[in-house]
Amino acid sequence: MSKPRVALVMGSDSDFPVLESCVATLKKFDIEVEAMVCSAHRTPEKAADFAKNAEKNGIGVIIGAAGKAAHLPGVLAAFTTLPVIGVPIKSSTMDGLDSLLSIVQMPAGIPVATVAINGSENAALLAVQILGGAYPELREKMRQYKLQMAENVEKKNQALQERLKA
Amino acid sequence: MSKPRVALVMGSDSDFPVLESCVATLKKFDIEVEAMVCSAHRTPEKAADFAKNAEKNGIGVIIGAAGKAAHLPGVLAAFTTLPVIGVPIKSSTMDGLDSLLSIVQMPAGIPVATVAINGSENAALLAVQILGGAYPELREKMRQYKLQMAENVEKKNQALQERLKA
Amino acid sequence: MSKPRVALVMGSDSDFPVLESCVATLKKFDIEVEAMVCSAHRTPEKAADFAKNAEKNGIGVIIGAAGKAAHLPGVLAAFTTLPVIGVPIKSSTMDGLDSLLSIVQMPAGIPVATVAINGSENAALLAVQILGGAYPELREKMRQYKLQMAENVEKKNQALQERLKA
Amino acid sequence: MSKPRVALVMGSDSDFPVLESCVATLKKFDIEVEAMVCSAHRTPEKAADFAKNAEKNGIGVIIGAAGKAAHLPGVLAAFTTLPVIGVPIKSSTMDGLDSLLSIVQMPAGIPVATVAINGSENAALLAVQILGGAYPELREKMRQYKLQMAENVEKKNQALQERLKA
Amino acid sequence: MSKPRVALVMGSDSDFPVLESCVATLKKFDIEVEAMVCSAHRTPEKAADFAKNAEKNGIGVIIGAAGKAAHLPGVLAAFTTLPVIGVPIKSSTMDGLDSLLSIVQMPAGIPVATVAINGSENAALLAVQILGGAYPELREKMRQYKLQMAENVEKKNQALQERLKA
Amino acid sequence: MSKPRVALVMGSDSDFPVLESCVATLKKFDIEVEAMVCSAHRTPEKAADFAKNAEKNGIGVIIGAAGKAAHLPGVLAAFTTLPVIGVPIKSSTMDGLDSLLSIVQMPAGIPVATVAINGSENAALLAVQILGGAYPELREKMRQYKLQMAENVEKKNQALQERLKA
Amino acid sequence: MSKPRVALVMGSDSDFPVLESCVATLKKFDIEVEAMVCSAHRTPEKAADFAKNAEKNGIGVIIGAAGKAAHLPGVLAAFTTLPVIGVPIKSSTMDGLDSLLSIVQMPAGIPVATVAINGSENAALLAVQILGGAYPELREKMRQYKLQMAENVEKKNQALQERLKA
Amino acid sequence: MSKPRVALVMGSDSDFPVLESCVATLKKFDIEVEAMVCSAHRTPEKAADFAKNAEKNGIGVIIGAAGKAAHLPGVLAAFTTLPVIGVPIKSSTMDGLDSLLSIVQMPAGIPVATVAINGSENAALLAVQILGGAYPELREKMRQYKLQMAENVEKKNQALQERLKA
Repeated sequence: MSKPRVALVMGSDSDFPVLESCVATLKKFDIEVEAMVCSAHRTPEKAADFAKNAEKNGIGVIIGAAGKAAHLPGVLAAFTTLPVIGVPIKSSTMDGLDSLLSIVQMPAGIPVATVAINGSENAALLAVQILGGAYPELREKMRQYKLQMAENVEKKNQALQERLKA
Repeated sequence: MSKPRVALVMGSDSDFPVLESCVATLKKFDIEVEAMVCSAHRTPEKAADFAKNAEKNGIGVIIGAAGKAAHLPGVLAAFTTLPVIGVPIKSSTMDGLDSLLSIVQMPAGIPVATVAINGSENAALLAVQILGGAYPELREKMRQYKLQMAENVEKKNQALQERLKA
Repeated sequence: MSKPRVALVMGSDSDFPVLESCVATLKKFDIEVEAMVCSAHRTPEKAADFAKNAEKNGIGVIIGAAGKAAHLPGVLAAFTTLPVIGVPIKSSTMDGLDSLLSIVQMPAGIPVATVAINGSENAALLAVQILGGAYPELREKMRQYKLQMAENVEKKNQALQERLKA
Repeated sequence: MSKPRVALVMGSDSDFPVLESCVATLKKFDIEVEAMVCSAHRTPEKAADFAKNAEKNGIGVIIGAAGKAAHLPGVLAAFTTLPVIGVPIKSSTMDGLDSLLSIVQMPAGIPVATVAINGSENAALLAVQILGGAYPELREKMRQYKLQMAENVEKKNQALQERLKA
Repeated sequence: MSKPRVALVMGSDSDFPVLESCVATLKKFDIEVEAMVCSAHRTPEKAADFAKNAEKNGIGVIIGAAGKAAHLPGVLAAFTTLPVIGVPIKSSTMDGLDSLLSIVQMPAGIPVATVAINGSENAALLAVQILGGAYPELREKMRQYKLQMAENVEKKNQALQERLKA
Repeated sequence: MSKPRVALVMGSDSDFPVLESCVATLKKFDIEVEAMVCSAHRTPEKAADFAKNAEKNGIGVIIGAAGKAAHLPGVLAAFTTLPVIGVPIKSSTMDGLDSLLSIVQMPAGIPVATVAINGSENAALLAVQILGGAYPELREKMRQYKLQMAENVEKKNQALQERLKA
Repeated sequence: MSKPRVALVMGSDSDFPVLESCVATLKKFDIEVEAMVCSAHRTPEKAADFAKNAEKNGIGVIIGAAGKAAHLPGVLAAFTTLPVIGVPIKSSTMDGLDSLLSIVQMPAGIPVATVAINGSENAALLAVQILGGAYPELREKMRQYKLQMAENVEKKNQALQERLKA
Repeated sequence: MSKPRVALVMGSDSDFPVLESCVATLKKFDIEVEAMVCSAHRTPEKAADFAKNAEKNGIGVIIGAAGKAAHLPGVLAAFTTLPVIGVPIKSSTMDGLDSLLSIVQMPAGIPVATVAINGSENAALLAVQILGGAYPELREKMRQYKLQMAENVEKKNQALQERLKA
């Protein structure tokens, strides 16, 4: 069986700093990532072509990230039957509320699986959970990941206890 | 010279009751209206084809109306050099704020001329003002329209005076 | 291979009218649905137990629906490695904004795949797309579903043309 | 035929830094720009006189930019039959929401073609699209502009691919 | 000394039902009220003329009421040195937030004394308090009014006590 | 006749930097200013005493400035028949929306004349306009002030013209 | 030991329908309730006197409920060292957001324990939990109450199962 | 009688800088503080165990602080009959509105006593007021604290008077 693959499509290269932790998290789970800059408005045909062909190109989940009137995830979802995850990017005004509503409020028929504003890492983890249906080893890796998160919280708690005693 | 033509594209036929005054207002100015239901997400290729061919089909202005994550006007604008007017439709939640932000907050490069939430009549009047550049007789009709609006305000004021005396 | 299964957990039975189209849509795709009322705050241990055992009970996707300070989807996600879809329910105040933010703004580590406010049908469709990874026949069914949606839009467009001629 | 002309009216000279890209974009399209500081509240009669005479002074589109209770575009629109584009300026509070609502929510009768908060460049592009009705060469220039935008996206995509390989 | 006079200017006659209690309250204080329908956008010159002449016509306070992009109070304030009170009218969308921000967020130089959304009665009472500077008998009447309000609260409290005993 | 007097009451000394332009503007109009720090919640009785005695102490207008759950202007208004102007102060969260709503949304019976968030200068100008009823020379000074504002706009416009030519 | 007592102060008798479940819930726990109508703005001295004397009158917790610019809970809190619970009442505009922010955003020094908009029953339950410190039998009653809530959820779940089978 | 004890549970150690003044204020009142990092989502079982045992471990009040989709206070409240105070932490987007709504909008049955966004000190003071029921000496200390706050306001007022004279 081939390796699981995720495509990360961003509306603008200026979104990449927010998305680096998405790429890094996917790699931690040994998932192949195909990242690209592609705009729903400036390169709409490329976006459509990419989405139409994603399934046959071996992509299992598409992550779309965009800011302001963030149409990219919805536009990708229009052209595929793959699950599409949307990451609302916070831009220079409106604190990301415009991006969030433009992504999450999709009309009936074409869902986008929306994560938090700038929720780059969670987009990756959601992709892992989705791919876990077909790649059961990812379920186990996610279990380990959760245990590690719990341990990290406990370590931080210990550090706080030390600090409070000091 | 051919008659001025406007296309009114709505994301859902449930938006039509809001848009009837748009059609009526355009007809008052003797503008040809081509209205259609076409979804950015359910019929994306039809939307793209329509927008790509609108100019050569004699359309001068496109009006796109949609609710919730209202991508339609932006998606149409991506495929044409014609001015696109966006009408945010108020849907069952969020009082139209989602529609407004999804339409007005377009990223640099692809503007949408946004009017008020449910601002159906103003979309028509804006189309008339835009078409006035190539069809100067519309400028004169608009001047008359404005005079009539002023007269209507004055009539309502007279009615108020009568009412207050009573 | 066993049939795909989805669990639909709602915080209150008063949310059920909104969720009926979710159940109906899942059944259209021949997906087994297990629906239950379970509160993150009033029956927290049942919620935790349910989520912990969902995977071994054959559930592939969990849908959590809740209103106001809608913690249910996030609380379910804390106890499972399955993908969890969150449906913000619009309650008597705040137009669903409180539900949306309580569900979508999950902190890093525990994503919830959020759909629109009252986006009951889209939660079902997203579940279908997610399950498509392990059940490829769902991909084909989804393709058919999308074609049918496009046809429905076209039918509504035809009806509009008739209406405008009249 | 004379050159196309656009007037850019700003409520305060402190808005100019946001608007420089509007002027620059209009000049790229070889459009004559007349920029001025003029306040709806501090110099209301000058604003009215300007708008009343704009058409006969050869202006084809008016762009009004203002912040807070941003009345300027609406006040200009009251005195002209030309299309008026409104640019909501983000000021020190409310993230531009006050400016946006004060401009876009115009009552029936007097539309303002609103672009994004601080959407300076899009105001220029919208003016170009509007003027394209009377100056067809602008349509062709806009087509070239869109091609160039698409190329720029592709270049950024190439740069991202390089970066990801490194 | 002549009687104190207040002008109540409304942007639309549809606002009058909200404003009836404003008129009634002013009359309770024996203040002469001049009410009129006058639009900042549809009859801008009449609005300007009215405001310019209000002082010499014996008006002491102007109340402006409008909804949506509610420019009327600010536009009146631009043309007078009288205090202008603004009443944001709640219209069919946005719950009056658009009206409130369009009225209260006036830029430095031209204040509008804003009251609550649909705060018709408070606009009248504020006018009375303002006029109290020149008409000291209004101060005394206001004192009586406040005593009566306190008595009414106490009566309602008594009614509640009866109700709770029952 | 004694000089006009205004009291400026602020909820916290941390608000003073925002309010300095209020004091300066009042002094430009030769109005006596009594400024004080007084909290609706920490020194409620002092606030009540101050407001009860303000009129007999020769105060003509009270300005109350406060942030967050900004009760001060409303509390002062409860104890006086003088007009009370409220200045919503922007604090570390919510961009001043909390302060604005806490001040402007006063229930029927007790109005507060609200100006823009951080609208310090406008509070002063509104006080001048209110005092103009009893001190007609302030009307004339305000007229001069408005002329000067218009001149300043024109100077800024000239500067812009120079800049654009360069 | 005397019975635990709670005072419920509402700004207007129109709030009582929302508050009936608060009274009923307190009575279920055998807590004495003293309810009154008392306005922070119309009867400010009564409000102050009530709060100042509440502790010595045997009150253990004060619940203040108010709408719009909802100052009542904060004003009561200013005059007592008892815990004050605030219930934001949803009024005719702004969906209760104004009430919520006016109550919860209290400045440092004077907290108000805020519950949900119209959260009448929760105000009662919070009072019970607070009184549990001095009246340990209330802790036990609350435990029973929680068990009963869990049982009710389970009953509703059973009803749902029946319905789904049908 | 043992000393009063408060538990302060924070969702992330990054919230501690905001919460230091909470700890400091509790210590001023000689209250024992047990602080810990514990996540509703990453360590949900630890959170549940902590809350279930808090009462028998001598805790009188639990303070839960969290940001974004801030479920922690509600989750703790689900497992205890102690009063739970919620502190919404302002995170990198949405200005704390998401945290506030996720905490305050708790459904009927499980209240959380919510204080202002980042209202760390007020959480401590509210805990003191709550504990005052069982530890009457805290009532007296709180009275002293309030007197001191009033004195501080007066000192700041004196400083302002000096500054204004200079």
